[in-house]
Amino acid sequence: TVVDKDVDFANYFCTYGFLYHQKEMLCDRVRMDSYYNAVFDNKHHFDGKTVLDVGTGSGILAIWAGQAGARKVYAVEATKMSEHARKLVKANNLQDVVEVIEGSIEDVTLPEKVDVIISEWMGYFLLRESMFDSVICARDRWLKPTGVMYPSNARMWLAPMRSRLADQKMSDHEGAMGDWFCFLDETKTNYGVDMSVLTKPFSEEQKKYYLQTSLWNNLHPNQVVGTAAIIKEIDCLTVTVNDILNVRASISSSISAEETRLCGFAGWFDVHFRGSKENPAQQEIELTTAPSEDYSTHWGQQVFLLHPPISVSKGDDLNINFSMDRSKQNHRLMEVELSCEIKQTSGKLLLPFRNKFYIE
Amino acid sequence: TVVDKDVDFANYFCTYGFLYHQKEMLCDRVRMDSYYNAVFDNKHHFDGKTVLDVGTGSGILAIWAGQAGARKVYAVEATKMSEHARKLVKANNLQDVVEVIEGSIEDVTLPEKVDVIISEWMGYFLLRESMFDSVICARDRWLKPTGVMYPSNARMWLAPMRSRLADQKMSDHEGAMGDWFCFLDETKTNYGVDMSVLTKPFSEEQKKYYLQTSLWNNLHPNQVVGTAAIIKEIDCLTVTVNDILNVRASISSSISAEETRLCGFAGWFDVHFRGSKENPAQQEIELTTAPSEDYSTHWGQQVFLLHPPISVSKGDDLNINFSMDRSKQNHRLMEVELSCEIKQTSGKLLLPFRNKFYIE
Ligand SMILES: Nc1ncnc2c1ncn2[C@@H]1O[C@H](CSCC[C@H](N)C(=O)O)[C@@H](O)[C@H]1O
Ligand SMILES: Nc1ncnc2c1ncn2[C@@H]1O[C@H](CSCC[C@H](N)C(=O)O)[C@@H](O)[C@H]1O
Repeated sequence: TVVDKDVDFANYFCTYGFLYHQKEMLCDRVRMDSYYNAVFDNKHHFDGKTVLDVGTGSGILAIWAGQAGARKVYAVEATKMSEHARKLVKANNLQDVVEVIEGSIEDVTLPEKVDVIISEWMGYFLLRESMFDSVICARDRWLKPTGVMYPSNARMWLAPMRSRLADQKMSDHEGAMGDWFCFLDETKTNYGVDMSVLTKPFSEEQKKYYLQTSLWNNLHPNQVVGTAAIIKEIDCLTVTVNDILNVRASISSSISAEETRLCGFAGWFDVHFRGSKENPAQQEIELTTAPSEDYSTHWGQQVFLLHPPISVSKGDDLNINFSMDRSKQNHRLMEVELSCEIKQTSGKLLLPFRNKFYIE
Repeated sequence: TVVDKDVDFANYFCTYGFLYHQKEMLCDRVRMDSYYNAVFDNKHHFDGKTVLDVGTGSGILAIWAGQAGARKVYAVEATKMSEHARKLVKANNLQDVVEVIEGSIEDVTLPEKVDVIISEWMGYFLLRESMFDSVICARDRWLKPTGVMYPSNARMWLAPMRSRLADQKMSDHEGAMGDWFCFLDETKTNYGVDMSVLTKPFSEEQKKYYLQTSLWNNLHPNQVVGTAAIIKEIDCLTVTVNDILNVRASISSSISAEETRLCGFAGWFDVHFRGSKENPAQQEIELTTAPSEDYSTHWGQQVFLLHPPISVSKGDDLNINFSMDRSKQNHRLMEVELSCEIKQTSGKLLLPFRNKFYIE
């Protein structure tokens, strides 16, 4: 897919130029604690080393690397946020260690290779934004053969779920279509134009918007109604861009709630900070965005809803085929195909279904 | 100002590609009735004539021109909405009269010059979106010397107003800054980084967002607390792009409400369909977006708020300098400077003020 670089810059990077948006990430305690502990519980990875922070934003990770004893930190940021990062570095007395460089990591030249690449590159459902491409590019160009990645591993998860959102979206959609038919009548009566030929494209547009667009949601653990399964595992040291262009998985899940409604599926991710095989972490740190009563993140979960929901019972088995590709119009967005067959405990097979979703 | 065409296309045109958005305009009764009456009360301008519809969207204006007897209508639309317009034309049996052409009007070549240019090019506060540039370009290239413009005239208005929004925005802003200082404390305590050097840029960002961004609002007429004044008059037949690059006006207004608060200023516009001097309309039609109890439009009014509001009384005189320019970053957005001095009936002059606003 061909990307116009200027369009991508205008659309993708604009929000990151706002301190307000950086602050939202800086206020995510789960995110912050994980990276903080990853760095300070593993000082041996930073002390006296050279570090590259890909997409430094406010500069926070670069500053921590500096505080943990790095000899030199290159902090690369595509947006004007780099200017704030530079000021913050100075105010925290690290101007001799942390060098903030404004530019896309793809275009930047460093004077040396580095021991560690640290980056917070995870988008919704891990891969949205496709920023990990840039981290892979940085790794292949600037990480020493003995280097380590922070984080070192990532996984994507999928689980069956229930939510009132499914009903709400369905009734929003019905409302919108009801409005449409009033609109057709009025346009014919008042303005002499018959617009009914647009009903099909309008209803497709609305269906995509209300029913096929996956949603951000912060689920309570008890909304997860069956076992969660891993749909992708990534070793950040070795994965290629080609490996993350799509995600394909055949998984099974077993309903764990008593009588309930299967309203769709929830996706989330976790990443681990383990260092490398030759140079392992002293203390492994995990950052998870799984549904949690106490520890929610700004990533929440990505929700794919079924319309209408399906009645399921404890022990029912789901066989799910999941496939995710990048959107042709915008390589930072995703399209998902999800098919599922349900085998009830009695052995009876329900009619399988197959749905298409957009991660916008 | 240099505009990247691809960025402009991606950002500006994307919403117009949705039927949902076209429908919102098609549901604006004030807008629809004005254009409908302009065409059908002035059939002599259309009957047997050639017409160009600049930015046909769903095709509605082109179809009306065809129904009013046009010999030929060229309906130009930049987005894929052109495909829906083409279907709609066919379904209304006008495929021999209305030719839908997909493309930017700037790039399109017509086989002949036209008698009428019709277009609904008005953005918020008339000039936002800068689409009238494209209409002027079309006029200079494709309108016969004897041709007429639909609409033929446009005006911008400004009036003093009151609104609780002023208090709300002020307290939102205070809340955001309160959050910021908590955030500073927590980041220092929990993560060992002093971010106070970012207070100034953050507060500028927030001030711009909460206090300096002008707002869409649908005002009740009794929220207008003084006389309205015209700040710009446009003759669509003769105006040049240069004439609309900025708006400068020195106006006065007199407070007409008893004791009240001056919370800011409201801007709106009207357009008229008068034909041309040589070829006047049989029936002049007006489309106004002024505050109205019964006839609100999707344009609403553009509101520029003062923080804090100022106490004023009936008879107080305002001398206002208004100046609007296009934003350097995006030629479809605007920046406003508004200064005002208030002379009370007693003759006492209040401290004059000068504010900067963004129309985003
Ligand atoms: N290719 C690229 N080159 C440089 N910076 C990039 C980039 N792609 C994304 N970014 C930047 O990466 C940042 C990701 S958000 C993370 C910010 C910061 N590291 C923190 O953890 O708080 C954004 O500021 C974004 O502008
Ligand atoms: N330079 C240009 N060339 C072609 N179409 C343009 C254009 N600038 C804006 N447009 C289109 O003009 C339309 C304006 S909205 C008005 C739509 C329609 N005429 C109606 O009255 O309902 C949008 O569909 C937009 O895509």
